[in-house]
Order: sequence, then structure tokens, then C-alpha cells
Amino acid sequence: MKQYTSLNDIKNLNTLVKKAIQLKNDPFQYSHLGKNKTLIMLFFNASLRTRLSTEKAAKNLGMEVSILNINATWNIEFEEGTIMDLNTSEHIKEAAQVISHYGDILAIRAFPSLTDKEKDTTEWVLQSLQKYASIPIVNMESATDHPLQALADAITLEEHNTVQKPKVVLSWAPHPKALPHSVPNAFVHLMHRMSNNIDFVITHPKGYELDTTVTKNASIVYNQEEALKNADFVYTKNWSSFSDYGKILPIDTNWTITQEKLGNARFMHCLPIRRNVVAEDAVLDGNNSLVIAQANNRTYAAQAVLQEILLGLVKT
Amino acid sequence: MKQYTSLNDIKNLNTLVKKAIQLKNDPFQYSHLGKNKTLIMLFFNASLRTRLSTEKAAKNLGMEVSILNINATWNIEFEEGTIMDLNTSEHIKEAAQVISHYGDILAIRAFPSLTDKEKDTTEWVLQSLQKYASIPIVNMESATDHPLQALADAITLEEHNTVQKPKVVLSWAPHPKALPHSVPNAFVHLMHRMSNNIDFVITHPKGYELDTTVTKNASIVYNQEEALKNADFVYTKNWSSFSDYGKILPIDTNWTITQEKLGNARFMHCLPIRRNVVAEDAVLDGNNSLVIAQANNRTYAAQAVLQEILLGLVKT
Amino acid sequence: MKQYTSLNDIKNLNTLVKKAIQLKNDPFQYSHLGKNKTLIMLFFNASLRTRLSTEKAAKNLGMEVSILNINATWNIEFEEGTIMDLNTSEHIKEAAQVISHYGDILAIRAFPSLTDKEKDTTEWVLQSLQKYASIPIVNMESATDHPLQALADAITLEEHNTVQKPKVVLSWAPHPKALPHSVPNAFVHLMHRMSNNIDFVITHPKGYELDTTVTKNASIVYNQEEALKNADFVYTKNWSSFSDYGKILPIDTNWTITQEKLGNARFMHCLPIRRNVVAEDAVLDGNNSLVIAQANNRTYAAQAVLQEILLGLVKT
Repeated sequence: MKQYTSLNDIKNLNTLVKKAIQLKNDPFQYSHLGKNKTLIMLFFNASLRTRLSTEKAAKNLGMEVSILNINATWNIEFEEGTIMDLNTSEHIKEAAQVISHYGDILAIRAFPSLTDKEKDTTEWVLQSLQKYASIPIVNMESATDHPLQALADAITLEEHNTVQKPKVVLSWAPHPKALPHSVPNAFVHLMHRMSNNIDFVITHPKGYELDTTVTKNASIVYNQEEALKNADFVYTKNWSSFSDYGKILPIDTNWTITQEKLGNARFMHCLPIRRNVVAEDAVLDGNNSLVIAQANNRTYAAQAVLQEILLGLVKT
Repeated sequence: MKQYTSLNDIKNLNTLVKKAIQLKNDPFQYSHLGKNKTLIMLFFNASLRTRLSTEKAAKNLGMEVSILNINATWNIEFEEGTIMDLNTSEHIKEAAQVISHYGDILAIRAFPSLTDKEKDTTEWVLQSLQKYASIPIVNMESATDHPLQALADAITLEEHNTVQKPKVVLSWAPHPKALPHSVPNAFVHLMHRMSNNIDFVITHPKGYELDTTVTKNASIVYNQEEALKNADFVYTKNWSSFSDYGKILPIDTNWTITQEKLGNARFMHCLPIRRNVVAEDAVLDGNNSLVIAQANNRTYAAQAVLQEILLGLVKT
Repeated sequence: MKQYTSLNDIKNLNTLVKKAIQLKNDPFQYSHLGKNKTLIMLFFNASLRTRLSTEKAAKNLGMEVSILNINATWNIEFEEGTIMDLNTSEHIKEAAQVISHYGDILAIRAFPSLTDKEKDTTEWVLQSLQKYASIPIVNMESATDHPLQALADAITLEEHNTVQKPKVVLSWAPHPKALPHSVPNAFVHLMHRMSNNIDFVITHPKGYELDTTVTKNASIVYNQEEALKNADFVYTKNWSSFSDYGKILPIDTNWTITQEKLGNARFMHCLPIRRNVVAEDAVLDGNNSLVIAQANNRTYAAQAVLQEILLGLVKT
């Protein structure tokens, strides 16, 4: 693996999921693979799970880890040709090349603006890093994608699915803040990759359609009750409007997941989750919640990815 | 040892102090004990000594260390049943369970509000973590206690005491900011544990009585001069009022420790200390000051505790 | 080596540069030298290169690294005899002594005020640490010096110089913010140390003269075009006025380095650099730019210094 910026970087998803589960059973079996290799984790945005699980994954492989909250240093310029006499102190061209000398793999978290749709859609931060860095990039959640979460979700589905072709529903949920599309996009990507084995339905209020270049021909059912019928897994997540970009729209029905709505389905969410807004306490505290299992699998998703990248590194 | 949230978690204080001193003499003798184990240090509040000494203690034992300033991520909800549509993004239920998968021991610093006495007294942050985390908790200073400091103080007393039953005085000191009761409480706990071998006196202005459930039958002398008479050790510390909770009361005498007041006694303080407010320069720069020794012993207090917990960990 | 606070701490510059280049060729050859030793990196100011390269250097030597952004804890007092009843919570006397117990080498970054010339010139932060710390100090950029950068520059010159006595020009550049004199001072120090082998010229607008106790008898040419003539290396850097301390003066000519001005000379800068303000894109993207090589050499400069200090450490 040369990088991990989206699920597209995984050649064989099933094989990688199997490898991750193997690592979970014996996390330190490749603890010499990362010897004298450094993972640099660059955060433009806050993190709990991604930070701790990716750090742990790298250390399980014997890597050194350097963590930099880049916002605590100075502003980075991404535009080409700018006269940098305002608020940005360093261009991503220099930053990316320099960091490439201090580490062997560069993991990056950079959320979208949610104000500039075109810019966000181009994945300008991630693209700039890919362009100028000379070491492999790992996406720790970008403007439009969160492939480490998707891989952790794939592991969780593999571990908990008991039927031949489960019905999986991605159900929009309310939230007081406007949130990115990265997680739902990544999950839709995953569902496309697993489409032979999964019956996938998206449900959300009108106006909350995701980017159609992502959803493609996925089935959208606007009636939540209908969508949830006979679901085996309910993946719940808020996102802001994509068409009315970054906005929270008025909705007139209650989309919070309740125990009653969930029925016997397993409940999934990437966390952090707002209790009694996205899903009620009974769902999260119930036996059908997989949210902690998903979070735990973040470590092994990251470890499988880092391991593949380490194996691909050619000593220069 | 299953956890370290207060001195009560120590079965035999004297034995643990002896072990800590042994570790101090040869800090790396158990450097394989923590192999493939991770200490997660979670800070709700700033730290210098606790941060550096606990990190060093863990690394001396061969542990990996992950440090998270949780306030730099997002606000954590602690109330049960809340509809989380305001300022908190993640419930401690999820955070504690998730972190328990990324580490083997969880150390936590969470100061009191100093505005809500009842809430602070219940140790709500620490209690929530204990309730929801599935790994051992280490208290790096909570709302009402600071047991790592108390253990370091026990080591320091053991190293520097030369008389059979020393007189130890806890002397309140002035301070421009309202401070927690954690350190004096922890020291009073320690004095109770060592009461067979120590003659303990507390002195402070009226109105600064500590929680009586902590001080119990400890001797309180309101006249500082009288209290300090023939002292072998003077432990100085400011705290805000407990009865008029979190307030700074007007006082009409000078409680700053001077060289003259100290006499031949050894001077102790947990640091950071405000010079010429809590104690004058001459005290801190004098030969009888033990403050640097106390800070140094923080490493070995933490190391002894982490070692006991590691020994108690059953591989799952 | 007992410390590294300025180039003066290097006995034989040429030997150290050679050692650094050797380490660059085989960075892990002394990875047991730092076993059970801790580098504490203390930041009063933001950092990208210094942070990542020094951390990597220490880890390449097998050291543990603890990083503390001291501004995120509390304010440190540096004045002697102060009554600390205002905004400072801990005196550097205690902080330095305490930290000396938690680590084996202390690296420190502390920028100047640029408002109090006398205080900045005394290097009060660095001097206080040297006075009170009992472990070796490494200067990661102080009020008036940046010797790790200078050593990295020496390595870069050694690697890229092809003529017998190259002409090196330090050329002032414009910048929207008032910047310290640390980097130009350090480079001037370096040029003095290498004066037998280098033809050195400083060029800047009138009013931007550096501290004459630093520049000594260095050649200053106020006409940039004349100064740059036949240059082999052009080291560009902004600094604020030293005589009108910390101020940005009005200038009436354009000092930005262009490809035309540069000609065939190699371009050097410590980074971060403001593109099209300090130097135009064509310079930074051209083949004659050494800025990434300089940044890369920061690791080996730091590693050579740390290695010398480790070799000098006598176990106490």
C-alpha cells in the first residue's frame, strides 16, 4: 500500500479486514516492523479516538510517533502564488517537504470549512500534502472522507454479522452543530465496496442528500420508519446539508434513534455521540450497541493500514 | 493494587514507601514490566510536575505513554440522562469505555469547580471514570485529593526524618487565587495513616477549617506561632475556604512562612509555590527546604504505584 | 560538550560537522547511547522544525523525549526577589531544579520580547535556566541566538559548497511582522567561525544594523545589488531593527530575493518563509534552493549535539 487516503487505496478489502482481526488477536506480533520508523501525526482539528488509536497502532508496530497540533504553531498557506504578507507564515510546499524528512509516514486530520463547497470537495489540504510530501499519507479524516473509520466499521460488521446478506441502514440524525460529510461518505464508500454482500439503504430528511458522486445508485428512502424495517445494522450519523452547503435545515419529524425504532438491529456510530439527540440512552446502553466495538477496532484498522504501508516502504 | 484514587488504595504504606526508595536507587530494574502496556494520561487541567514525573515513571517501567489534554478536544458530559444539545459533545460513558480499549492504565487530573461544593465533594469526574472505565485509574489530582503527592511526601518524610516521633505542622498560607483542598486533604490523610509515628498539628486562620470528614480528630491550633513551636517539619499550603466554599477570606495576620518562623524545621510544599507570598525567599533557598526533594520523589511515588498496578493486571 | 547554548560551546566546528554528516549517513548507529536518558523539550514558543527534528534526533539516539508547552501550564517568574502575588505561579528557580530531576538534558525555546532590548540582550530566560538547572541545556532558539540552526547551516554549506573560498551574503528581507535577531545573529557567529574559508558580506537597509557586538568587523554593504554580485550562497532572513528595537522601519527599495537577483547562487533560509515576500516562488521552487536541505540537516545538527552531550554526561 502506497498511501491511505480513501478506501480506494485498499486492493482487497476482505483480506485487509482479516489481517486487522488477526492483529487484534495478537497486536504485538509485528512489533519490529516499525523499528526506526516514525509516524508523524498532524492535526488541524481536535481528536480523541483517532489520536489515541492511531498512536497505539503505530507503537504496536514498534514505530516512533510524533504528534503536532499544527494550529498551535502558525497558519499554513495552501494557495499557489500568494504574496504571503497576511496571516499565513508557512506554505504547505515547504511544510510538507520538511516533514517528509522528519518522518516515514504522515497522518493528517483536516476538516472541511463547510462554507466553501467547491474547495472542500477538491480536498485541497489532503491534495496539497499528497502533492508535496514525499512520504506516504494516511487520512485521519479529511474534508470529505474518513477511511480509517470505514475500515474499522468493516471490521466491526465482519465480527458481528450473522446473516447471509444483512440489511444495513445509514440513518441521518439531528445535531445542534453543522457537521461534515466525511463519515457518511466513507460509510457509503464502504457499502459500495461490500455491495455484493449487503442490502444498503440510506434514509434522511429531504434536503440532506449526500454528494451524488458518492452515493451513486444507492437506495434512498425518505421515510425513516420504512427504511429501518427489518434492518440488521443501523448506522446513525448527523451531517449538514450538502446542497444548501453546510447548513442545518428545519425538519418536522423526530429522527433520533430510539430503542423502539432500532428493534433487534445492531446500532453503529463513529463517536463522539450526543446522547438523547442522535440516539437515546437506551440504545447506547443496550446490548445491541456496537459503538465501543467500533472505537476499539479503530486501533486495528490503523494498524493494518500502517503495516501495509510499512511493508511497502523501500529504504532510500 | 487495583487502582490508585486515594491513599486508601495502599494496603501497607510503609512497604510501598520502601519500594519507592528502592526504585529511586535503581529506576530501571523493572523496565520490562510495562512492555506492551500503555499509560494514558488525561488532563482536564494544566500540569508540570505531575505530567513529567508520571510520564517518566511509566517509561522507567517500559510503558508507552499517551498524553491527552482533553480540554483541547471537546467538552465532556458527566450528567446522566442529559439531552446533549448544548456544549458537551461526548459523554464520559463513551469516553471512558473507549479509552479503556486504547490503554492499560488511565491516569486522570481533574480539579474541582470550587463553586459547587456538593458536586466537588462527590468527586464526580473521578467517580464517573471509575464507574465506566474498565482499566485501573490513577488519580493525578482530583477535586478533593492528590494521593500521588501524599505518597511522594511520605517518601520525603521517610528520607529526611531523624527523630522518633517528629512534630509535623500543616500551616495554611496566603495566596492571591482561590485554590483547591486536594493537597492539604491528601496530606491530612497521610498524617492519619502515619499517626502512630507522628505528632500532627494543623494551623490556619479561623474560617479555613478543612472538611471535617477529612480532618476528623486532627489537632487544630489557630495561633500559627504556637502551632509551629518545636516543629520538625512544616508543610505549607494555601487553600480556599471550605465552609464559605471556594472563597478567599480577609485575614488580619501574616501567614507567610519566614525563616524566623521556620526555625530549624524542614520546609515542605507541593509546588508550584509563590515566592514571598507563601514562603519567603530565604526559606526556599535555605538548607531546610525539601521542596525539590518532594518534587523528585513524585517520580518514584508514581513508579511504585504503576508498578503495583502492573503487577495486578491480569492479561485478558 | 557540557551544554549547547551558542556556537561557542563547539570546540571544533569542522569535526562536529563531519560527525553530523556521518550520523546522517547512518542515523541509528548510536541508538543505545541514549538508553534510559530523557530529553525534556520546553517550549515557550511555537515550533515545527525544531520540535520535530530535535525529537527525532533524540529518539535516533535511543532517548526518551518529554515535550512541554510551558505556556499551556502557567506563567513562570524570572525576576529575583519578587513578591509573586500577581500573574506568575512558579519561579524559574523551582521549575529548573525540578525539571532537572525529571530529565537528563533540557532543551529550551524562548523568544525575545522585542520590546525590552536590555532584558532580551541579557538572555534572561536562558541564563536563568543555566543558573538553576543542574542538567545540560540545549538552546532551541533564544532571545538572541539559534545555534542549532547555525550548525545545520554549517552542515548544509559543507555539503553544497564547491569552491575554495565561497562568497556568502546575508541579505535582509522584508516581512509583515517584527521578527527576532536570533537567526541572523547565529549565522553571523557561524561566519566568524568559518572566516578563514568564507568571504562574508551582510546587506540590509540602513537602520537594520545588527548588534555590533555580534557583527564585529563583518563587512556591511547597504546596496543589495552590489552585495549579491558573484555570491555563491545567499542567506536571506528578515529581522526587525536593533537600534530602533523591535520596530519595522519604512524602506524605499524592494529587498525580496528574486531569481534574477540570485543568479547562480544557492539560496538559504531557516524557514518558515513567506513566499513572494522574503523570496519569490521561482527562487524557492528553483534548483538552487537549499531550504529543504537545511531543514533536513536540523535533525543531524541536533543529533550531533545531543550525542556530544550524552558522551559528556557522568552518571551521578
